[in-house]
Amino acid sequence: MSFDTLQRRIDELQNPTVVGLDPTAALVPPQLLSAEVTLDKAILEYNFALIDALCDIVPAVKPQSAYYEALGVVGMHVLQQTCAYARERGMYVILDAKRGDIGSTAEAYAQAYLSATSDYTVDALTVNGYLGSDGILPFYDAAKANDKAIFILVKTSNPSSGELQDLDAGEKKVFEHMGDLLERLGADSRGELGYSRLGAVVGAPYPAELAAQRLRTPSTFFLVPGYGAQGGEAADVAGAFDAHGHGAIVNSSRAIIGAWKKTGDGSDFAEAARNEALRMRGDLAIVSRS
Amino acid sequence: MSFDTLQRRIDELQNPTVVGLDPTAALVPPQLLSAEVTLDKAILEYNFALIDALCDIVPAVKPQSAYYEALGVVGMHVLQQTCAYARERGMYVILDAKRGDIGSTAEAYAQAYLSATSDYTVDALTVNGYLGSDGILPFYDAAKANDKAIFILVKTSNPSSGELQDLDAGEKKVFEHMGDLLERLGADSRGELGYSRLGAVVGAPYPAELAAQRLRTPSTFFLVPGYGAQGGEAADVAGAFDAHGHGAIVNSSRAIIGAWKKTGDGSDFAEAARNEALRMRGDLAIVSRS
Repeated sequence: MSFDTLQRRIDELQNPTVVGLDPTAALVPPQLLSAEVTLDKAILEYNFALIDALCDIVPAVKPQSAYYEALGVVGMHVLQQTCAYARERGMYVILDAKRGDIGSTAEAYAQAYLSATSDYTVDALTVNGYLGSDGILPFYDAAKANDKAIFILVKTSNPSSGELQDLDAGEKKVFEHMGDLLERLGADSRGELGYSRLGAVVGAPYPAELAAQRLRTPSTFFLVPGYGAQGGEAADVAGAFDAHGHGAIVNSSRAIIGAWKKTGDGSDFAEAARNEALRMRGDLAIVSRS
Repeated sequence: MSFDTLQRRIDELQNPTVVGLDPTAALVPPQLLSAEVTLDKAILEYNFALIDALCDIVPAVKPQSAYYEALGVVGMHVLQQTCAYARERGMYVILDAKRGDIGSTAEAYAQAYLSATSDYTVDALTVNGYLGSDGILPFYDAAKANDKAIFILVKTSNPSSGELQDLDAGEKKVFEHMGDLLERLGADSRGELGYSRLGAVVGAPYPAELAAQRLRTPSTFFLVPGYGAQGGEAADVAGAFDAHGHGAIVNSSRAIIGAWKKTGDGSDFAEAARNEALRMRGDLAIVSRS
């Protein structure tokens, strides 16, 4: 689905939040683990319960592919079922896989995650654009053909993101070149609300860059990591939103799905996740409506 | 296994070639397809026959993960079995997955593909380093801990690779910054032949850049795509090798595994692949020994 569709769902729930489903053995509540249950089954139960607890207040989930791939071949079944269940419960599904390649190989990745016949129920996929437009267009074409969308890494949330991304290249930085490329390539898919199907990942820990990119690339919808466990705060993400409070969705993963670690023994994990999601919604309401 | 180990295997076979196992429905010989056989089973048979035909003359294979992911969940079984069989036949296995992320997510990818308990028998993994050293070190640490190696994208083989990679940033281009970062980070894992466990992808279609990078980053082993089907020729890759004819492995995918398309109806696909691999070995012998 397009980012226009996502923005409407955000407006409906008044919540520009995406919950990262990044399950690890350490985050699964002990109540779901036992000698009779394999880790992959426990994670599936955990994910389903989280989706049930969040789907009426949070518009989107973002399964991080790495954690499913780390489970081995069986993990892809968990990913498949997690994506399908989230969509069934009305959530927008962003698969965070940061795939990236060129030509027929990029088309194969698009076939895997953005086609009508994909095994995975995905609305949007994250993509690494280091290879340039050859590495973006096959994903983008598939997104346009199949009512999906992609997010390209622009300015990532990690401490070393500047090593490459902040290099001064001519009149602008490398990540600004990337952002401008997306704004330009996306011109042919803008929807009613103005957003193309070519979004950008721009991290919360760099609030000045985030706010500048919002102004610089008005048709590009943002996925904003780095809020919560990675240290970002609501004030940091304020600049991600335009004058209508539109244009971005903010991710939180461990702070929500692992909220039970601060509240109890794990038996209340779903309620703890919901409470933390409500707290985050309140936190963001102040900045995303300004 | 380290790049020293790979270089020794290359020397033994006098062949700096890696064959890309990039199977698509169009490349599978019709003899392997029938109403009773699913595409994943046909691809597995195709891969096994190619490995049998090549393992005594080619030191390494490079399965491209995208083509297996495109088959859906079942494709990961095909990838798993292909990697295992190639290793069983003595080949060095480079998984071309271009993964990239940070922190615990990068660790999860490393767990998936570079750990002792991985479902996939992989010697080296390709990684996208756009996120900087935070996105490289977790993979590199896993490689050092488990006798494996990684290749980071530096200067890719596609026409648009320059959009980001060739930007002038200070005294050098973006891809030179990336190459220098790898050369520096890799200093603590150099083996007897001088190569670290942190390699680089540098494409054949840019021979001047390739030769300059060889001189600039002497401890960095190169994976060179873009020979053959992508238009590169032997003269283009000459600069990838040092004075000893060492330091690089050149990939060819479709030109070898799809060689049968030029020679017959598909019944001779394994022989056609072997003949093309022998031709390529001869072609490279001239330049890699100079």
